[in-house]
Amino acid sequence: MDPFVVVGGDAAGLSAASKCKRENPDRDVVVFEKGSWVSYAHCGTPYYVKGAVDGLTDLVSLAPEEIDERGIDLRREHEVVDVDTDAGTVTVVGPDGERDQPYGDLLLGTGAHAIQPFDAGRDVFTLHGLPDAAAIRARIDPNFSPDNADLGPIAAETLRPYVDRPTPSVAAIVGGGYVGVEMAEALSAHGIDVHLFQRSDLLPAFGSAVAGAVIETLEAEGVTVHADTEVTGFDSDDGGVSGIRYDETRLNVDLAVVGVGIAPNVDLASDAGIALGETGAVAVDRYGRTDADGVYAAGDCAESRHAVSGEPTWVPLGLTANRAGRAIGQTVAGEPTPVGEIAGTAVVKAFELGAGRAGFVTEHAAREAGFEPVSETITAGSRSGYYPGAAETTVTLTADRGTGRVLGGSVVGTDRAAKRIDTLATALDAGHTVSEIERLDLAYAPPFSPVWDPILVAAKVLSDSV
Amino acid sequence: MDPFVVVGGDAAGLSAASKCKRENPDRDVVVFEKGSWVSYAHCGTPYYVKGAVDGLTDLVSLAPEEIDERGIDLRREHEVVDVDTDAGTVTVVGPDGERDQPYGDLLLGTGAHAIQPFDAGRDVFTLHGLPDAAAIRARIDPNFSPDNADLGPIAAETLRPYVDRPTPSVAAIVGGGYVGVEMAEALSAHGIDVHLFQRSDLLPAFGSAVAGAVIETLEAEGVTVHADTEVTGFDSDDGGVSGIRYDETRLNVDLAVVGVGIAPNVDLASDAGIALGETGAVAVDRYGRTDADGVYAAGDCAESRHAVSGEPTWVPLGLTANRAGRAIGQTVAGEPTPVGEIAGTAVVKAFELGAGRAGFVTEHAAREAGFEPVSETITAGSRSGYYPGAAETTVTLTADRGTGRVLGGSVVGTDRAAKRIDTLATALDAGHTVSEIERLDLAYAPPFSPVWDPILVAAKVLSDSV
Repeated sequence: MDPFVVVGGDAAGLSAASKCKRENPDRDVVVFEKGSWVSYAHCGTPYYVKGAVDGLTDLVSLAPEEIDERGIDLRREHEVVDVDTDAGTVTVVGPDGERDQPYGDLLLGTGAHAIQPFDAGRDVFTLHGLPDAAAIRARIDPNFSPDNADLGPIAAETLRPYVDRPTPSVAAIVGGGYVGVEMAEALSAHGIDVHLFQRSDLLPAFGSAVAGAVIETLEAEGVTVHADTEVTGFDSDDGGVSGIRYDETRLNVDLAVVGVGIAPNVDLASDAGIALGETGAVAVDRYGRTDADGVYAAGDCAESRHAVSGEPTWVPLGLTANRAGRAIGQTVAGEPTPVGEIAGTAVVKAFELGAGRAGFVTEHAAREAGFEPVSETITAGSRSGYYPGAAETTVTLTADRGTGRVLGGSVVGTDRAAKRIDTLATALDAGHTVSEIERLDLAYAPPFSPVWDPILVAAKVLSDSV
Repeated sequence: MDPFVVVGGDAAGLSAASKCKRENPDRDVVVFEKGSWVSYAHCGTPYYVKGAVDGLTDLVSLAPEEIDERGIDLRREHEVVDVDTDAGTVTVVGPDGERDQPYGDLLLGTGAHAIQPFDAGRDVFTLHGLPDAAAIRARIDPNFSPDNADLGPIAAETLRPYVDRPTPSVAAIVGGGYVGVEMAEALSAHGIDVHLFQRSDLLPAFGSAVAGAVIETLEAEGVTVHADTEVTGFDSDDGGVSGIRYDETRLNVDLAVVGVGIAPNVDLASDAGIALGETGAVAVDRYGRTDADGVYAAGDCAESRHAVSGEPTWVPLGLTANRAGRAIGQTVAGEPTPVGEIAGTAVVKAFELGAGRAGFVTEHAAREAGFEPVSETITAGSRSGYYPGAAETTVTLTADRGTGRVLGGSVVGTDRAAKRIDTLATALDAGHTVSEIERLDLAYAPPFSPVWDPILVAAKVLSDSV
């Protein structure tokens, strides 16, 4: 049988390759990665920039040698430029030229790329991948030395231009999503005066309660938040970026990070005639199969099915990629396994604040998905009120008025608030109603929770409205 | 209509009284409490003894005045000594003598009491209620002064005998349940050399992985754990307890706390001919109704229904009491509301360690409940491995071999491990299988969790066995 060919050596691709090889060691598995990094943690890059993580290779989950040991034929610096679904081959360009590789099964794990709508000059960065992270760290960390840094395959000389100029003192961040919020913390840690620009709401998928708490925290930490502000572009001079333009005004900055979103890498699929979904990502069924025979897609380039709406959605996050890749590896190995639905569960840290969200949080989003939403936001303690360390925890819970089914929610606070969202993610998966959540037997002891966990308090209050 | 009469002014009773009065303000609600404390947090007493909580009234949720403001007729120091279910009356003995009180609905929230199998002399304590907590704190805290302490209705002079003798230096704790483990931490905080005696396993309902971690932590903190040790009694001299006898040996101690369990207060119910269940607690249906017309029972004196087995069980914990009381209050007010099932979810703190459990954790317990269990224990990180603060988290997951349904599990670790049990409690409520848990969309970001949350890792490993 022709090998299981995987395009892309990150979360989805290597999860699939590893699982397939483990379940069926006789199957040949080839992974093509166009870059030099494989199996790295995108989500860790802001903490590398911040300096909370020391070495760049700390962000690598599986070293190439470990991948070899699993019997996977990993080819870095090999770009798949074409898929022929009729012939069952991919065309690969590598250091030794171009060749065709037949596949028995094919997984597209091509990932996504950062959207950069600006005419960006020097010192205007996006953050998507380890080379970006290394460049920003080199630029802002006065203690960073390319020659002594753990950089993996990145050559020290490529970073020298970033360290040979004065360290920036004022930075603009454009975009108030994960990258924007996390980079505000990361840049502030280096003493940089940070201005965060956001066209509409901060972290819009988290809803207004989280946005309000995050803005309050950012500002308390010295970040200037420019909400509802349209950035029109950057000025630059010989030394790099010199200013940011917005709302007919201008601010001098000497560094900028643009985090306005990412888009799925779908050219390879669409050029091959593989169907995309309405979200723009590759359409897949519940086993991760595209509409081409034997061709799967997973990770940031592919759609998922939403646990609440049942509809295709595109929420490119790490667990989704790992889980779908693993399921596809198992399917390819002979045991058909669904990739699972997603609840859109996500957590984000802003200095000491943690926030989580799942499902449809805002009434707007719930209405778009066809529900008649009713929503309540409450504030409760994180522990018994008398127990040291108790802090306010704010929960938003949104439900469908007719059925009482819970559609989504958010949690925010400083004391272990973020992971409390897992309770809701699990309840969404189960299709629980508000009353069912209200009666959940959640854990109580004074050091960990009040008698009524904040999620239960929100359900109690919301139950009066549904 | 005759009033809604509540026997017992703690979690179940006052939750019911408050909810009923809120939903139906015209209904008369009378609460009889035989003691002087109402609405207090049992679970907080070890932290009061430790000194982490300063005042005794900090443990009170609702002050008597707040209860008055809700329109509840609260009678403290009134003991209900008889229930006549035919006449629909209770006999109450209070400061003004004995009288009969007719009821329209009656809730028995009589609680539980600490089991004390030993012939206990002076300085051999149990811990069940605020007077016990005050006495122990007075005895062990050299900075405690009855005249300056916040003691609520407790008279300072009653505590003077406890402070007028030398502070203990060696203490025995008998019993390795919640009270035993929490009191080990509390007594150690005062510099006391603590010996913990346990007949069988520590925290048996949590399973061996938690027990092992807790013992390791206790011993690292200087507590001597005597496992599998049968205590036979205490010696005393004029100054109080002087020794503990066990295994044909003896240890000098000058304080002892016995925490070998609690038993439900059911005499009032059984004397009235109300049926008890097999567990020995009052039998109730899914609305908290006993077999007597208009008579409910809730809290530590009543059974609950187990979410996994569907069978009656007795797990006296705070949320169960509050939740059942609230539901009964709503039912009595005219809107029938189930009290909810319990998953036996519980969390405990042992110094810096936190542990949670839900459902049937041990194979023995699962087999007793009629399942064919298979169980795995894994250790995973609490955060991404490269993120500061990541710590080992150990998860045990137990499932039914035939159906794959998850039956229970535990979590233990130092970094936000305990409340991770809520994911499992919610999944148990939903009747999830191992594969369904494996595909849950739990929250991931490096500061909060690895890509695969420890619960998901356990499900991945267990899925190979079911």
